[in-house]
Amino acid sequence: MFDERVALDFSKLNGLVPVVLQHSETREVLMVGFVNQEAWEETLRTGLVTLFRRTLQRVQVKGADDESYVRIERIVVDCDEDSVLLEVLPEGPVCHFGGPTCFIKPVENSHFSQVRSDTDKA
Amino acid sequence: MFDERVALDFSKLNGLVPVVLQHSETREVLMVGFVNQEAWEETLRTGLVTLFRRTLQRVQVKGADDESYVRIERIVVDCDEDSVLLEVLPEGPVCHFGGPTCFIKPVENSHFSQVRSDTDKA
Repeated sequence: MFDERVALDFSKLNGLVPVVLQHSETREVLMVGFVNQEAWEETLRTGLVTLFRRTLQRVQVKGADDESYVRIERIVVDCDEDSVLLEVLPEGPVCHFGGPTCFIKPVENSHFSQVRSDTDKA
Repeated sequence: MFDERVALDFSKLNGLVPVVLQHSETREVLMVGFVNQEAWEETLRTGLVTLFRRTLQRVQVKGADDESYVRIERIVVDCDEDSVLLEVLPEGPVCHFGGPTCFIKPVENSHFSQVRSDTDKA
């Protein structure tokens, strides 16, 4: 499906390369996963997100458990060929907690809090 | 500036955690970098993107070379606390090749090419 000759630099991270999933329509960043050579080849061949699962230590098609596969609209490799952006259209929740995105824990910005409490005092 | 008590899981990748930089206004994904504990603490304290540079094997404020720092608007940690999304407003080019994004190498989609050539034949 995608050009299977595209090579990545797997040397910097013990055979892995990070991939970022971004929703192709909402532009929301959904998750970060990793591919090894085998997962990368499967991703290119099938057009479905296929990751190396570090916890399981094996390659797995994303959504294989519940058939909520993640179809890839566009792939862009970075300047150094050591990270990948996948623009995707998920058929179901991307996060294993059931939500559309894995990025669910905002870090509090104390500067903004400070500004707010200053305003409250005024 | 940001809550400095927020912990990440550095155990899965030899002390590193991937961070995704997304432009807070255009929503474009700009690059993937890595933080170690020290770079993470500096990022939270200063609100400026600070990375562990794997090629240099040291912590560096992004843009320190040419004072084009990358200011962070919002930080979101993922469900497993092993990746980070930084919504940023860069003051200059993010890519060391001089462009606004590191994701500059689209992978050809042979399916779309095939569709096009079928249409050409018809």
